[in-house]
Amino acid sequence: MIFDNLDDFFSSGIKESKRSVIRELLKLINNPEIISFAGGLPSPEAFPIKEVQEICNDLIPKEGAYMMQYGATEGDPSLRKELIKIANKAGMDAEEHNLLITTASQQALDLVTKIFINRGDPIIVGIPTYLGGLQAFRSYGADIHGVTMDKEGESSVEIEKKLIELKKAGKKVKFIYVIPDFQNPSGITMSKRRRIEILELATKHEVFVIEDSPYRDLRYRGEHEPTIHSLDKERLVIQIGTFSKIFIPGFRIGWIFAHKTIIDKLTVAKQATDLCTPAFNQRIAAEYLRRGLLDVQIEKIKKIYSAKMNLMLSEFEKNMPKGVTWTEPDGGLFLLVTVPEHIDLEKEFQKAIDRKVAYVIGSAFTHDNSRKNTMRINFSYSSPEQIKEGVKRLADMIRSLI
Amino acid sequence: MIFDNLDDFFSSGIKESKRSVIRELLKLINNPEIISFAGGLPSPEAFPIKEVQEICNDLIPKEGAYMMQYGATEGDPSLRKELIKIANKAGMDAEEHNLLITTASQQALDLVTKIFINRGDPIIVGIPTYLGGLQAFRSYGADIHGVTMDKEGESSVEIEKKLIELKKAGKKVKFIYVIPDFQNPSGITMSKRRRIEILELATKHEVFVIEDSPYRDLRYRGEHEPTIHSLDKERLVIQIGTFSKIFIPGFRIGWIFAHKTIIDKLTVAKQATDLCTPAFNQRIAAEYLRRGLLDVQIEKIKKIYSAKMNLMLSEFEKNMPKGVTWTEPDGGLFLLVTVPEHIDLEKEFQKAIDRKVAYVIGSAFTHDNSRKNTMRINFSYSSPEQIKEGVKRLADMIRSLI
Repeated sequence: MIFDNLDDFFSSGIKESKRSVIRELLKLINNPEIISFAGGLPSPEAFPIKEVQEICNDLIPKEGAYMMQYGATEGDPSLRKELIKIANKAGMDAEEHNLLITTASQQALDLVTKIFINRGDPIIVGIPTYLGGLQAFRSYGADIHGVTMDKEGESSVEIEKKLIELKKAGKKVKFIYVIPDFQNPSGITMSKRRRIEILELATKHEVFVIEDSPYRDLRYRGEHEPTIHSLDKERLVIQIGTFSKIFIPGFRIGWIFAHKTIIDKLTVAKQATDLCTPAFNQRIAAEYLRRGLLDVQIEKIKKIYSAKMNLMLSEFEKNMPKGVTWTEPDGGLFLLVTVPEHIDLEKEFQKAIDRKVAYVIGSAFTHDNSRKNTMRINFSYSSPEQIKEGVKRLADMIRSLI
Repeated sequence: MIFDNLDDFFSSGIKESKRSVIRELLKLINNPEIISFAGGLPSPEAFPIKEVQEICNDLIPKEGAYMMQYGATEGDPSLRKELIKIANKAGMDAEEHNLLITTASQQALDLVTKIFINRGDPIIVGIPTYLGGLQAFRSYGADIHGVTMDKEGESSVEIEKKLIELKKAGKKVKFIYVIPDFQNPSGITMSKRRRIEILELATKHEVFVIEDSPYRDLRYRGEHEPTIHSLDKERLVIQIGTFSKIFIPGFRIGWIFAHKTIIDKLTVAKQATDLCTPAFNQRIAAEYLRRGLLDVQIEKIKKIYSAKMNLMLSEFEKNMPKGVTWTEPDGGLFLLVTVPEHIDLEKEFQKAIDRKVAYVIGSAFTHDNSRKNTMRINFSYSSPEQIKEGVKRLADMIRSLI
């Protein structure tokens, strides 16, 4: 009986949640014939296998009992120390009480949403924006408002319009969510001017800014813009980082830098969510940082990925039919492809699979399921040969639909 | 300005959440002079350091790239296989689609609450019950109703009364939460009769039963009662397990066995919460199980802990003044001490710290902050010498208050 009326049992949040398109797509890459530009997976060739093995051999005999025990919710002290050091070295104003270690950045998104959002609370995101962010926001019933993006990032004009509109309607916007560096899925990097404008709007209208920053270290050309966090004098910026793209996603280690009162609330939320992030993995990561290996690793990854990005862009240039456009990122893992408006890439997805190539439908990255004529393409995972062949297959498929 | 009106920003759930007393207390054990009966920590002497080191050396060179990559939300296939094997061997009716791997059992509690609870939805728990459960339930605004416990576990008479009462009030109870084996904090094991009664009530009144089972393998005397899951023909039972008490808490690996529709919803919720549990740790754990080492480990732990429990009980017998009573568990990590009603152990906590001994106040384990004259005592972490000395200090402190 109970299973006949299950809908009476489920929470509103879970009823509105959907299985992640990306997670489901990840399953496809198990078919070795399919060239997948779908995932956001780092290249397996880049993992520091030998170094991690060495650290395990050095640490486990000496510190095994500590590494295997429960850890502090705030995170392992040695890893916290190393992260603060890196942050300070990059000119970031951050102390111990500004930091929480999380079970990768997806948990950071979950916790930030958990402490701020009651059902129906409005937030502002880009169109498009990160799917994992949308999932976290939806799972707490956030009222998601989208603003369009141009080459400089999310439109500050539209953000201000939304802020005024929602205030007039008596609603309190909790935060603006952005991924300023090599945005997922668009690959767009926010201009300095836009960063300043968004921060000014946050200050003026009293809302927080979530600066999600998983790709920042992966810049292949051009100069860094300042982080929004570094421009912020009032600690309105909550910055999220992760090792998943630059070190080891399988360790599930991320972090949040924010005002100490926010960190305190996030820590309480984390206690109820998973108590602590694995001490075992945190100690290995801390030792990896202490040995100065991360900088070497980032240089190695940048070399591999920038070559792949350049190859991907030149193959697009060579193969794509007229009427198809794509973003040209300066870093990160993704670019966004736009095809003529009449083509619904969600509907046509099976045709890509038939041609043994995979992408993520762009509509998965919009709060309103729009932009069906876009697709996200990952260039970090596939080999050069796969990139060449995959872009050909993709171009042929699009050509057949134009 | 924003930080002057922060309360306008925080969600109701986080406003009602408090820092965990246990987590805060864990910080005390860093003072080596304090004998801590407070934590729920496994004994560091019991960790399988050599075995894990060997597995790391065997696996990382061969499978490093897989172990370091993102994993499936459902969990690592090899670990899933081993867990199903163990479950089936124990006579449990469970298939692949009945299992989700979680980031330890705290995440299991978070996810179960997330998929079922809208603010104000009623649930039923024991007085006392597990603090981490209460934290998870509170963080989603569950309306928590408590029932008293006797030597057979949570009172089924009171549960039925609550179920009828709440139904009359037009409220839908979502689940009954129990820890039937060596309950935390009381150490009480639920009788078979009580398990059957609670399951009958769940069937009759159409509610789910959360069977939280972290300690079941740690039985030091007597015979196992059947799990509630094994008595359940309708899949109303959602069973939560973890490696934290029998293997390595620092790996953060737990799991949920439930009806496939429930597992499906939990998987969607987990995608938005932390994407996946570390593949690195899961592969090491799977290999540990494949090598048949867990059974050996459990026997080793049982030997250590049962000796400590027996010592603790005999020291209580020797030292405690009249008017003090305590539970006599058959397994697990905890016993519950009751002192005369006029003594408030929350208020007197500092006196224990002054005497360099620590416990957890019993009121932390009640939804209504009652039972201030009880304390939870852990017997797995301290050495025999510490147990002897610590019980003396505790008895002296209580004697001074009677």
